[in-house]
Amino acid sequence: MGLRMPLSDMFSGFADVETVSAGTTVFTQGDAGTTMYVVKNGNLTVSIDGKQVATLRDEDIFGEMSLIDRSPRSATVTAVSDCTLVPLDEKRFLFLVHEAPYFSLDVMKVMADRLRVMNRLL
Amino acid sequence: MGLRMPLSDMFSGFADVETVSAGTTVFTQGDAGTTMYVVKNGNLTVSIDGKQVATLRDEDIFGEMSLIDRSPRSATVTAVSDCTLVPLDEKRFLFLVHEAPYFSLDVMKVMADRLRVMNRLL
Repeated sequence: MGLRMPLSDMFSGFADVETVSAGTTVFTQGDAGTTMYVVKNGNLTVSIDGKQVATLRDEDIFGEMSLIDRSPRSATVTAVSDCTLVPLDEKRFLFLVHEAPYFSLDVMKVMADRLRVMNRLL
Repeated sequence: MGLRMPLSDMFSGFADVETVSAGTTVFTQGDAGTTMYVVKNGNLTVSIDGKQVATLRDEDIFGEMSLIDRSPRSATVTAVSDCTLVPLDEKRFLFLVHEAPYFSLDVMKVMADRLRVMNRLL
């Protein structure tokens, strides 16, 4: 299955990128929030209860869990370098799921990766 | 978002269900495998390294990770009761992702649930 396509291509027409400076916390574990993000460029860390569980880089996505199930943020995400992020709100997310099946597959792939990482941490 | 729809409705026309007896292992951690399953009815357990991490019941799905990323099974799934399962191979899975966006959302919802469970086990 061609599960990965360049997400940056998919979102190249999205003008409303967010730039965050190195050291900035994008969101904090426990926060409410329904926006997910695609990393256009930059590096970030993902921490749960103060423990770093993952790093993020270009083309990665994060924040999809709260968008999908409306629960609080499960982790804290902090920019390690200056980053450019593409925010996807619920409307844009649902549009992509309906119109771009490969986007759905990409989100599932990322979640499967994460589940395997979590399994190893058990 | 109407993220959950009755999966049993979606698959009611699928004739090729599998029946497994109580006590049967559907698949074992580390196995190769590219089929996911929808639980039409029954109860199963999910174990990683011999530790039970989840239970499954009607409408749940499992086995999606190996289908998505072609990696070995991340867990062992065992039927607790007699079960009826709907197997989805890659072809059927991709058809659903393309034609039934709510199926994708449902898979993502299940994976988000699982990630939150794993986070709590950290």
